[in-house]
Amino acid sequence: MQVRIIGITHVPEVHLGADLAGLILSACESGDTPLVEGDVLVVTQKIVSKAEGALVDLDTVTPSPFAEQWAVRWGKDPRQIEVVLRESVRIVRMDKGIIISETRHGFVCANAGVDASNVPGEHIVGLLPEDPDASAARIRERVRDATGLDVPVIISDSFGRAWRNGIINIAVGVSGLAPLKDFRGQRDTHGYMMSATVIAVADEIASAAELVMGKLENCPVAIVRGYPYDRAEGSAREIVIDPARDMFR
Amino acid sequence: MQVRIIGITHVPEVHLGADLAGLILSACESGDTPLVEGDVLVVTQKIVSKAEGALVDLDTVTPSPFAEQWAVRWGKDPRQIEVVLRESVRIVRMDKGIIISETRHGFVCANAGVDASNVPGEHIVGLLPEDPDASAARIRERVRDATGLDVPVIISDSFGRAWRNGIINIAVGVSGLAPLKDFRGQRDTHGYMMSATVIAVADEIASAAELVMGKLENCPVAIVRGYPYDRAEGSAREIVIDPARDMFR
Repeated sequence: MQVRIIGITHVPEVHLGADLAGLILSACESGDTPLVEGDVLVVTQKIVSKAEGALVDLDTVTPSPFAEQWAVRWGKDPRQIEVVLRESVRIVRMDKGIIISETRHGFVCANAGVDASNVPGEHIVGLLPEDPDASAARIRERVRDATGLDVPVIISDSFGRAWRNGIINIAVGVSGLAPLKDFRGQRDTHGYMMSATVIAVADEIASAAELVMGKLENCPVAIVRGYPYDRAEGSAREIVIDPARDMFR
Repeated sequence: MQVRIIGITHVPEVHLGADLAGLILSACESGDTPLVEGDVLVVTQKIVSKAEGALVDLDTVTPSPFAEQWAVRWGKDPRQIEVVLRESVRIVRMDKGIIISETRHGFVCANAGVDASNVPGEHIVGLLPEDPDASAARIRERVRDATGLDVPVIISDSFGRAWRNGIINIAVGVSGLAPLKDFRGQRDTHGYMMSATVIAVADEIASAAELVMGKLENCPVAIVRGYPYDRAEGSAREIVIDPARDMFR
């Protein structure tokens, strides 16, 4: 079995209101890799946020006293801290200059997903899309309208992890595939019953896509070709752990 | 740019003392996908542990009173809990029937990586290899001896995560590549300086490999072809977070 991860590099600079699906389809054609049945599209959060205007001009932000004192203490921009707090519904950890919080989507990540890199203009920071599942669904629908293909879409972002250095790509938005693959109760090749095997395939697909997306290159989209995903409406919220089961609140 | 993930399915059942590199090379040949320069080999922990005898027969284990009471309380096998405790240097969380602990390697994971699935014989559980970096280095060396190719090797295992459902493949052993790619201080395509971007590429490669390895099929090895990794000796310990920076101890 073989899966191919194809980087799509011909996507132009994305502006507010851009037709992302259209830009992506043109870029796939320009790169001589038109979409085919069975493909999964992985789209980085950055261009989704730009197209949707999920950006904040720090010059318009008045920091609260709480944001101000934290910023002063740790040498941060108080306006940026203010944006992080506004994007957070709950602080999980706040120490050593780092804020790890829960976003309104239920994601736990550093800085509530607020991203100071890769946005042109020094005072603009990027936010997570308002509803990344809906963003994914819109791209999927537009691709279906244009091509007749029902291609699942994953919106990816890079998150840090507890206990491990470095960030990895994960799925913040999903449409068209089951983000979790459940093997519980199935038997493996040795007849052994698997008790606790649910695989977060949407996260693994997002990580695989990062291998071609890189960080310095202009490659905001990847095609994952040949992966036998389970078709479903899907939602990145399925990957968010139930608070009752969360041992790291 | 394109990366291919190729599943290697012709690996026979692995027994104690098996020449893993030899079995893998034969399997690559049988599958008409001989290794080429630039490939990365991902090998699942399960077959490494089998080859190295990192297995415990539960019939030989006498549970401590602590293991016994926890097992009774949560309906677990006390001998298996005993093995988990023996594989742990520190318990991180112990609640709701779940033990999350730190292994001697520094990994934080459920059940200290002790694996009751996929080992033939009902009373045998698999442990993490004693030194997965060394396991990776041995396979790499044998492959180099046999083929003249210096192919990096990643030993993978599937770990759960804080805050997110499902397990994903990560790197527990690394030889021949830099597991972390550091973009700090580099400028992206918009000239923006990146402040906190270190990508755990070894984990992303392991996750990508899982897409072809599956769980029910006999596919314990994958080739990742076409990824421009940074050559280095490498070690999975580089991915383990420094206790001084760990916000989730």
